[in-house]
Parts: sequence; C-alpha cells; structure tokens
Amino acid sequence: MKNGAKPIPHYRARITDGFWRSRQELNRDVTIYAVYDRFKETGRFDALKCLWKEEDGEESKPHHFWDSDVAKWIEGAALILRTHKSEKLEELCDSLIEDIVTNQGEDGYFNSYMSVAEPELRFKERDRHELYCAGHLMEAAVAYYESTGKRRLLDAMCRFADYIELRFKLLRDTDFITPGHEEIEIALFKLYECTGEHRYYELAEFFIEQRGRADRPIGVSTLEYNQSHAPVRKQRRAVGHAVRATYLYTAMATLAGYTGDEELISACRDIFDDIATKKMYVTGGIGSSASGEAFTVDYDLPNVMAYSESCAAMGLIFFAQRMLALESDSKYSDVIERVLYNNFLSVTSLDGKSFFYTNPLEVMPYLYYKDTVSNFYKIKYPKPSRTEVFKTSCCPSNIVRVVPTLQELIFGEGEDRLYLHQYISSECDTVQNGKSLHVTVKTDFPKSGKVRVSVQGGELSLAVRIPSWHRGNEWKTQHGYAYMTVKEGDEVTFSFDMTPYFVEANPRSLYTAGKCAVCRGPVVYCSESVDNGELLRNTQIDPASPIELCDDEGYAAPTLTVGGYRRVGCDCELYTQGITSELVPTRLKLIPYHAFANRGECEMLLWHNVRR
Amino acid sequence: MKNGAKPIPHYRARITDGFWRSRQELNRDVTIYAVYDRFKETGRFDALKCLWKEEDGEESKPHHFWDSDVAKWIEGAALILRTHKSEKLEELCDSLIEDIVTNQGEDGYFNSYMSVAEPELRFKERDRHELYCAGHLMEAAVAYYESTGKRRLLDAMCRFADYIELRFKLLRDTDFITPGHEEIEIALFKLYECTGEHRYYELAEFFIEQRGRADRPIGVSTLEYNQSHAPVRKQRRAVGHAVRATYLYTAMATLAGYTGDEELISACRDIFDDIATKKMYVTGGIGSSASGEAFTVDYDLPNVMAYSESCAAMGLIFFAQRMLALESDSKYSDVIERVLYNNFLSVTSLDGKSFFYTNPLEVMPYLYYKDTVSNFYKIKYPKPSRTEVFKTSCCPSNIVRVVPTLQELIFGEGEDRLYLHQYISSECDTVQNGKSLHVTVKTDFPKSGKVRVSVQGGELSLAVRIPSWHRGNEWKTQHGYAYMTVKEGDEVTFSFDMTPYFVEANPRSLYTAGKCAVCRGPVVYCSESVDNGELLRNTQIDPASPIELCDDEGYAAPTLTVGGYRRVGCDCELYTQGITSELVPTRLKLIPYHAFANRGECEMLLWHNVRR
Repeated sequence: MKNGAKPIPHYRARITDGFWRSRQELNRDVTIYAVYDRFKETGRFDALKCLWKEEDGEESKPHHFWDSDVAKWIEGAALILRTHKSEKLEELCDSLIEDIVTNQGEDGYFNSYMSVAEPELRFKERDRHELYCAGHLMEAAVAYYESTGKRRLLDAMCRFADYIELRFKLLRDTDFITPGHEEIEIALFKLYECTGEHRYYELAEFFIEQRGRADRPIGVSTLEYNQSHAPVRKQRRAVGHAVRATYLYTAMATLAGYTGDEELISACRDIFDDIATKKMYVTGGIGSSASGEAFTVDYDLPNVMAYSESCAAMGLIFFAQRMLALESDSKYSDVIERVLYNNFLSVTSLDGKSFFYTNPLEVMPYLYYKDTVSNFYKIKYPKPSRTEVFKTSCCPSNIVRVVPTLQELIFGEGEDRLYLHQYISSECDTVQNGKSLHVTVKTDFPKSGKVRVSVQGGELSLAVRIPSWHRGNEWKTQHGYAYMTVKEGDEVTFSFDMTPYFVEANPRSLYTAGKCAVCRGPVVYCSESVDNGELLRNTQIDPASPIELCDDEGYAAPTLTVGGYRRVGCDCELYTQGITSELVPTRLKLIPYHAFANRGECEMLLWHNVRR
Repeated sequence: MKNGAKPIPHYRARITDGFWRSRQELNRDVTIYAVYDRFKETGRFDALKCLWKEEDGEESKPHHFWDSDVAKWIEGAALILRTHKSEKLEELCDSLIEDIVTNQGEDGYFNSYMSVAEPELRFKERDRHELYCAGHLMEAAVAYYESTGKRRLLDAMCRFADYIELRFKLLRDTDFITPGHEEIEIALFKLYECTGEHRYYELAEFFIEQRGRADRPIGVSTLEYNQSHAPVRKQRRAVGHAVRATYLYTAMATLAGYTGDEELISACRDIFDDIATKKMYVTGGIGSSASGEAFTVDYDLPNVMAYSESCAAMGLIFFAQRMLALESDSKYSDVIERVLYNNFLSVTSLDGKSFFYTNPLEVMPYLYYKDTVSNFYKIKYPKPSRTEVFKTSCCPSNIVRVVPTLQELIFGEGEDRLYLHQYISSECDTVQNGKSLHVTVKTDFPKSGKVRVSVQGGELSLAVRIPSWHRGNEWKTQHGYAYMTVKEGDEVTFSFDMTPYFVEANPRSLYTAGKCAVCRGPVVYCSESVDNGELLRNTQIDPASPIELCDDEGYAAPTLTVGGYRRVGCDCELYTQGITSELVPTRLKLIPYHAFANRGECEMLLWHNVRR
C-alpha cells in the first residue's frame, strides 16, 4: 500500500507566473464577469427572488439547475476574493446571498425553482436536482466564509443541511433516498471540514453508503445512469452519466481518506483504472456518449461524435486528486496533467468569454448544421465553436470556480515529504520535521521541460513526478515519483524530454485504428483547416518525418509542423475506379489541441492517418 | 436530347434462370408467406375490419401506416399470381380485399386507422399518411385486377380516388393540399393507365403541380422534409426524407414522360445527377441521415451511421427507371445496377425471411447495443442484423412487390430498338418494324461477364448498355449504349471485364478518405469478422496485391481474397508512445456486400484502409 499525499490547499500555495497564472488572471478579470453578465441576462440571478408565478408563462420560468449555476459562480467569486479583494465582486455576492437567505424557508429549505414551480414535489422527484443544487450552495457558502469571514450564507446552508439530515436520514419521509445527481456528498465533507460539525460528515457517509441499495431508476434511464445499480463497494467500473459518476467517485475517495476502508479504496482504484485504461480520450475527456452524457463500453471513443463534457473532465480531476491523497501513484497525477493541458484548457476560449460544453476530437462544421429537415431524430453532433452561455450552463460556472484553485493540484504532503505533482511556476508553505518551509518552483513548462526547485527555512524532502511521457531512465522512481533532497540555498534543477512524439491508441479503439496523435510533453496537438486547408482527413502523417517546432504564437506550447502527404485528384466523380488519387508531400501545421476553434469555425483533426 | 426507352412491362418479359430467378422463387415461396405471418401476428390484417375502440387500449391500436403494408403485400401477391396461380394466395387476397371493401365508407373513403382512431381528423392532418395508404391500395387494386381480372378492389379504389378528387381538387375543403408522404401520384398514373380514366391522370398532375406552393410544414420538420419548399420545376437538388423524395421524383418523371415538358425533365435530370454524383453510397443506398431519414449535405455519407433505408433504394430504382423512359442514358441504368446488386439485394436475408430497414456500410455490433444508460438521447445506430417485422414495416412489403417485377428493369423499347439495360438471363416479346420478336438473353452474370443474345421472328435492332465499370473501349457508344444488330438464328455474344478492381471515393467524402472499396463488375465487396477476425478497422489493403477469386460459396458472385496488413501490438495500454504497432501481412477474405450479416452478428467493413 502506497501512502497518500494530501493536496496542499489553495490558500497555502500560489501560482506565480507563466501561462497558468495568466489563465487565473483571465478568469479573475474577464471570465467571472462575462459569466455573471450571461447569467444575469438569462434570469438566473433574478430567479433567486422566487417571484415567478404560473401566469408569467414558461418563457420566464426558472430552471431546476439554476441554483447550482449561481452557487458555482459565488464559489468562484469567493475564491478570487481570497487573494484579490474587490468591493464590486463582494457586493455582487452579498446581494445574491441576501436573496438566497431571504427566500430560504423557515425549515431551512431553499430551491428557487421548486419553491415557485413545483412546491408540492419537494423531495419527491429524484431528478429535480434539489440535493445537487444544495450541495453547490454549501460549497459556495464554505468558500465565501473562508474568503470573507461572513457567515450569512454558511449559517443558512448549515440550516439547509440540518433540514436535509432531518428529512432524509432521521425522518426518512422523502420519496427517494440518495440524490439523483451526486454532488452534495462532496459538499457535506467540505461543510464538515469548515464547521467541525460531525453530523455533516455522517450525512455525506449516509448518502454514499445508501447508494445502490433501494432507489428506483429515474424515468426511462437505467440504474447505471446515476450509479444506483450497486452499493458503492461493489462498483468496479465507471458507468453512467460521467459528471454524476466522477462526483460520486470523488466522494467515495474522500470518505475512504477518512476511514482508510480498504474495500472502498479498492473500488475507487478499480474504477479509476477502468477509466484511465479503457474509457478516456487522449485529451483526458471522458463520457463519450451523448446518450445520457455517459460512459459507454470499453474503448468506445468516437472523435467526431465525442461528447466528453467539460464538467466530466473537471470531475475526473477531482477524483484523481482524491486518489492521490490516498496513494501517491503518478498514474493519478499523470491523468490530472493530461486533463489540464488538453480537455480542461480547451473548454474556455482564449478571450475567456465562451466555453465548450462538449469537446470533440475532430470537427467537421457541416455535421453540426446538417440536420435541417427534421428535429424528430436530432443527432447531437458537438458544436464546432464555443458559446457564452448554455441552457444548462454548468460548465462555465465550473470553470469559474476551478481555475482559482488550480494550485491545489501542484503540491501534496505526505510522510514528511513534499510531492511535486505538476510543473507550474509556484510557491507553497509546508512543514517538515517541525520546520516551516517555503518552497519555490520555477519553470516555463510546457514550453520547456526544465524545472527548478528551491527552499527556504530548512531542508526539503521532495518527491517529483516523472511524467509517463518522459523518455529517459535517469531517475529511480517509486510509483512514478523520484525522491530527492533540496538543501536550503540550493536550487535543484531537473529537465524532462520535450521532444515531440507520436501516439498510437489501443487497436480496440476502432475510431483511431491506423491513426496517430502528435504530442509534446503533456500537450496533444491538432491540425485546423484554417492553417492546412480543408478536407483534413485526406492528409497522412509520415512518422519518419521529423516534427519541427515553429515560432511561439502565444499558446501555452509552441506550434509544430510535421511532414506528410495529402491525397489529391479523383475529385470529379463520386466514385473512381482504381487507386488513382495521388499523394503529394505536404507539411502539416499543428497547434495545441487546447487552442483549437479560436480562429473561426473550421475543420479540426487530432487523430491523423499515418503513412507507413 | 436523347430519346427514351420505355420499360417492357413485367408481363412481357421473364427471368428464366440464374440467381435472380432463384430470388424471385424465394420471394414467391418463402418471403410472401413469412411477411404474411408477421403482418397477421402484429394485427395488420385484423385492423382492416375496423373494430378497434378506444377502450381496447393503445396496445392493440392500429397504426396509420398499416394499410400501406397490407396494400403492398396484396400487390406483391397479385404480381406473383400473374405467373403462378395459387388458390391459397388468391383466397388470402380475396379475404383481405373483402374486409377493405366492406369497411369502405359510402363516400369511398377507406383508412383502417383513421376510421377507428381519429375519424374527426380526416384530411386535416398532413402527416397521417391517408393519401400514401390510398396510393398503395390503388397500386394493389391495379395489380390484382391485371392478375386475376377481379374488379372488386379496383372499383372500390376508383371510388376512393373519385372521393379524393372531390375533396382535394373540386371542393378544396381539406386542411392541406398535397400529401404529407408522396406515393398517390405514382398510383394515380397507374390507375389511369389501367382504367383509361383521364381524371386520375389529372389528379396526379394536380398533386404534383400544387406541391411546394401553399402547404405548411408538418410539426417541427422543415418544408424540405417532404419536398414542399418549392414548386417541382424549381427543385433541382434532392432534399428531405429520401423515400418521399424518390416517390415524388418518380411521379415527376412519369408526368414528364406524358407531357414532354422540358423544364420538368430538366428538373428531374438535375435532381438525379445531384443524387448520383453527390449523395449516393457506393452500394446505391441513399438518404444517409437518420434525422428525418433524409438526404443531407453533399458527400455526407457516413458508414457506421449510414441510414440508407431499404425503401429509399427501391425509390431510386423507380426514379431511374422513369428517367430511362425519358432518355436512354446509361447513367440511369448504371445506377439501377448499382442498387440492384448491392443495397437492394442486401435488404433480404438469404433465407428470405428477414430484412434490413437501414443498410449500414460498416457494422460494429457493440455500437447498436451501447446506449444502455438512458433513452433520453437515443442515438440510432443501424441494427447489425435483419429483422422479420418492424413497427414501420414498409421495407419487407416493398421487397415483396418489387421482386416480381424485376424483369421490367432489363429491357426498354425506343425508336424501333430494344435496349438491354441489365444482364439477367431472360426473355421478352417486342415488336420492331411490325414484326413480333422473341428475344432471349443468356448469362450467368455477375459470375462471369459473358452475355448471349438471340432473337426469333426477325432481325433485332439492339442497344446494349456498356457498364461504367467495364474496362475496354471495343465498343462505340452513344450515351453509354452500344448499338448492334442481331439476325434471326444468330447469337450475339459479348463480354464484360469482370476483373476485380478497387474504388476510391471523392476526397470530399470524408468518411472514406484514405480508404478503398473492392468491387467486381457491379458487386461491391465487404469483409466480415466471422472470416477475418475482429477489429477489421485495423486492417489495410495493399492495392499492389492481386485480388484473387475464391470458390463459389453460393452467393450471386464469387468470394475474393486480397492481400494486406493487420495492425498488431500496442494493445496493452490505451495510448502508447511512438508508432510501435506492427503491420503483419495478411489476406482478407471478401464476400459480396449484399450477403453480409447472414452468419450471425459480426463486424463488417466495406471501405478498407489502404496501404500505399
């Protein structure tokens, strides 16, 4: 059994420069306000006043997800306020919180949709997201209290938690036992950590332990849809709606972190391995099927039809982070890195204002627009471009709250040793052998693979993740980490091999058969027709051709070119007898996948044909 | 302007031997009864008695398509009866006809669904298929009268046509002007030809000419969905639901055949060219999108997700056949051949009892079954196997009625010349220069490309289609036909090159980029995992390798083998660094596409990767 490394919380670490810093600044200066404006326009904030009446009509009716959007926005604002005071932002939050608390029931219940639209159905319909919204409000309350010291939302959400405990755990008079959409389990652990109230821990445990025992399916979906098909210790594969799934797995791993329950840890490990070895895109995306936004069968990872929801990628980060706290194995931090530099970064446009909900690995814009004759059997191809707000706008507000905490992914603490999981210019405070240490990491990763670590206040015992893509065996590793000591005043320098490389997928992954991806470090590349002309599928990469670095164009990583061929000719007829097309040499320009779709709608291709 | 060649009607021609003959026998001895049994079991025949009442419940409620299923079955039975008397079959027909006529309204209206389920909505809802069902009943009536001389159904359907004329054309008191699903236009022309009643011709003309002028869209579909977006002469591209489309285009071409209207002919020609050069699978399948069962944008021909409905392929045959009657250009008969030997033949299982509704060009069985977590966003991958009966069972009954008339596709008559469009062992009677000629065609095509033609009764002026796939320029052709004379007593022999060949698709067809199909004559081949092992997408064909003929395994054409490679290795990890898989030489066994899925559910691949 490997020992875990608890993440250093965001307030004890700081991203100091580099492009992740600029991403945090973009989130702080642009995204938080852009999302606010869109939420305001769409009525999400006004809905908190609970004024909607039947006669106002469906058009202005609030939606049962909306409280969670608002809550994640408040949580994001709170996390920003912790390091960057802003009267404006704090006033916006206070005003929203006032609306929430004012309209909270005397019993502690709050749900802006249910109160006005379906008050008679409180805790009767498992798909109404009441506990999901409650969970996000609790997370917001904790963050806002920790940032500002203001207890108004925290106290309100404790009353809500007490009411939920009363109804679900003590009276047991609700029409379902566990939430239709997991989330509150994570929130209750946070509420427990913040308030010290053990009943919140026990309520989280209750929801986790009761799952898969007695609840019925929602509508036409199966029990697998929301992981209600088996008690959690019997769940060994990732199934169903990918966001719900990863939120549950995160909660399971959190519980296991408290209890050390080997059977639960083993269930979490099996599920993680199932995802990482059979159900994850090369971008770190998960949940490949639009049907149920769900995991599907092993190796079913379509590219054009990828679903790969942004929130599911974030859920995978949460899950992997909790697994790292259980056991320091680089398989978890490797997956976090894969998600971070690819699917996670791609969610937000470079201007910080628009977002992908689904994250395709190949784009042919016409497919999204082709279904013009009927909406009866609408096939949902992913949108080829980002959008400012969605009807279900979970992803933008998730980004808003996750970006300010990215520093939590960098460091871990375990056995008087500091774990360095991710290579980001940063600093943190830690204690080893009773000494307070201040650790500084300097790097321009992933532009180069060079990393420098220094320490003040004493000697540092350090474990450094050797990325799975690094070629070289200069380090002796344990579970993917190299152990070293950094003396005060010294600077330890190490470097990873940033030579671009090809990747092949398992042959069972039929959508990538005969194709390759191009990567450099953790960054996966793609081609776009804006650089390479249309009909990208007619190109082939020559793996014998060197991959060359181009000039820096302002992305997190340099662009590349690679040699290959383009199929030309035989474009008169629909079908031509004989292999008459020609392959003409060409060079393909590749950009980091995470930067695609920032120059207008165009074709994009990640898995290229290989000429060999 | 090329002159047309009117098809020799089925009763003046006969398929004499070979596998098309065996297919007609299978239809006569097995399929007609298998479909009868399934229709009986599912209540389609009992529904004609119009006894269903609201209190009987939804379970036993008839469906608004059902009359068309029954009608096509009767039409098929009638066509079989013309050459093969069967008391049993005739009794079955008489009994069904009795139910129809008994339950026909005094005003002439008949619809077994509307009468019992929605009598108040007669001619008020454009999507209820009332005129579509009426059309098929008229076609059945004509066929049954021509086969048996019995007028009972014919007279009844004339009364129905009169009533439709009254309501739609004279009173104009219906809530729509043209049918939601085209079909009755074709039927009314047949009713006119059978009865000589010109009003039926005029009613067909009325429905064609009124189309695209004033009708509103059905539900959420667009006007393009059922070709109601423009008057027919302004329609120049194939749009919308592919069966509706081809039935309309067939009627347009039929009308143009009567009138010689150049603008209408030109519209038909443009639409045909649009299909044949941009929207047709290599199998002759059309209507690639499950969304609306419809044509989509140019070159959008997905393989795994192909819709390619069986009835649409038959509709394309009808349309091309009418175009041939307008102008003797082999582009029409080439398309008929492509459909016949591929998509059309593949519809029915080799045992004659089950059918494809959709016709994929690639099968990965797991895709059909993968959507287990939710039915909310069900993505309809094509079924990997044939089914005995469908909820909408239009395809089986269409097969039943089309197979007995296949001989109509072989010969055409124009300008004192006999056109030989298709190479099928057959004979026909024709008149040239006042002499009655009996023409005999002998061939085992497509096993070999050798065809022998002889004539009795005088000298035959013959035009022979030179297939587009034939390599060689031994003939001087006009619009794809070689002209020759056959003297009485002589036997003219010619032969087409049956060397297997590769086919590439237009590079704009992105699903086939870098891939090839293998063909021999008109027959397209595929590989199945039952012969070649699983993960067919990991194979590559070596186009430099000779394609070899294997033994005859009872299909219409020999099986083939072709050299290539199979990607092996790198099957431990989900993603592997470097191009480390190996390509090991292999030979792929290929079978005619039309015979796939007859040996259990397995993978199937038509477009193979090419190693070059």
